[in-house]
Amino acid sequence: MKGKVFLVGAGPGDPELLTVRALRLLQTADVVLYDDLVSTEILSLIPATTRLHNVGKRCGEKRITQEEINFLMVGLADSGLQVVRLKSGDPLMFGRAGEEIESLRKADVPIEVVPGVTSALGAAAAAQIPLTHRRLSSAVVFLTAHHASDREAANWSKLAGSGSTLVIYMPGQNFREISLKLESTGLETDTPCALISRASTPRQQAFRTTIGELENAPHLASPTLLVVGDVVRHADKTILEEFLQPTPEAGVSYFPSPSKASEEESIA
Amino acid sequence: MKGKVFLVGAGPGDPELLTVRALRLLQTADVVLYDDLVSTEILSLIPATTRLHNVGKRCGEKRITQEEINFLMVGLADSGLQVVRLKSGDPLMFGRAGEEIESLRKADVPIEVVPGVTSALGAAAAAQIPLTHRRLSSAVVFLTAHHASDREAANWSKLAGSGSTLVIYMPGQNFREISLKLESTGLETDTPCALISRASTPRQQAFRTTIGELENAPHLASPTLLVVGDVVRHADKTILEEFLQPTPEAGVSYFPSPSKASEEESIA
Repeated sequence: MKGKVFLVGAGPGDPELLTVRALRLLQTADVVLYDDLVSTEILSLIPATTRLHNVGKRCGEKRITQEEINFLMVGLADSGLQVVRLKSGDPLMFGRAGEEIESLRKADVPIEVVPGVTSALGAAAAAQIPLTHRRLSSAVVFLTAHHASDREAANWSKLAGSGSTLVIYMPGQNFREISLKLESTGLETDTPCALISRASTPRQQAFRTTIGELENAPHLASPTLLVVGDVVRHADKTILEEFLQPTPEAGVSYFPSPSKASEEESIA
Repeated sequence: MKGKVFLVGAGPGDPELLTVRALRLLQTADVVLYDDLVSTEILSLIPATTRLHNVGKRCGEKRITQEEINFLMVGLADSGLQVVRLKSGDPLMFGRAGEEIESLRKADVPIEVVPGVTSALGAAAAAQIPLTHRRLSSAVVFLTAHHASDREAANWSKLAGSGSTLVIYMPGQNFREISLKLESTGLETDTPCALISRASTPRQQAFRTTIGELENAPHLASPTLLVVGDVVRHADKTILEEFLQPTPEAGVSYFPSPSKASEEESIA
């Protein structure tokens, strides 16, 4: 009998933010294929007898291609196994799920998509930032700064100039480039921004800045999200301003180095 | 001792899509204040001894203002109770959580925000629509057609013209107006759209159309979401095309009337 592939969202990191369905599937699957950014707290919930594979596209020295992941999923399901493909956040946001679904459909593998709490919503909840607000913002844009092409740059201009709240996934480390792009769309340099790293986990860090000051922001560990817009003024100040006044002695080294391994990874 | 208010996302409707934390809080809270759009399946998980209030802004003949909801939350927390404010989807998206948080902070009431699976992600998962796609869309916009002002109309033009996937919450029933607005931004009339109603529940309905044909789409029951963009071509056809070819005899009446009560409600 043919198995099945479940594309499952792991949420932002806290195991309590898994959905009930995701938790059940993790505890009953035959195999779990997970990305680098899935938290260790979540992986520890998977029974020791379950086959567990890291298919992060950068895993130390190893490298697995998208085609190899697709091939692996089809092969496992064809041999009758229940396969969980576990993705950070929600599976349908920035996770190449479209390509995985296409491969599975071509091979007639049954699929179920289990949505998750996308990382942006985990970060917003952690910092208590209302992403929409009756007086400030009536739309939210989720985009990525990763692999931005010229075509995407044009999109940025329209998206950032729309007056909506922006949430930038995988902002990378070139904050100067991001702030220049944001300023070029007409956004004021004093527009508030929040950088939130590893939201919802014990290693969460948050930093409040502005577009003009963004290039001086610390480089936080992945996964990090950047929220841009006036709604950031409504964040919980005790959370966001914890890192606002670093002492000169501390420099930037009091923040852990961002993990290069995971910076390449998709988060959603 | 002061109580606490938990702003909790109920997810798209399926109780299995509650987070583990949301389920735990629903089972231990003293009081639950919920919106009209929270599904009956989820409400049935709350113990019979818990005080349960519908604070939907349209509840039959009743009407409760935002100020009254804020006042109620503060009063309950001040009397030492653990209060869950349960919102459909995610609490920080389109749910006036910003105003609720401000009131609670002013009254020094401790707050925790528990993020949820936002309705758009529940709908996308149900129809297997990848909201981003390497070849088609690198950004997603969540917006609402409800209470659109002139300023919002200007935003629509930039947002819809950005090439991003659009997810329109609370599209209402004036599909002609929406399709005209979308066409005026330069989107092609054959751009695919998916209407998804009550995603993830046993009453889920889905309908595939295009911007040009949108005005002929059936009016599905709330909550409904409209997904616009080329990614809709990648939806699961067996799900989305179920309602594609209505027989002429059936007209539009084979769809249940949308509930006016809930159309006014925020979903997130």
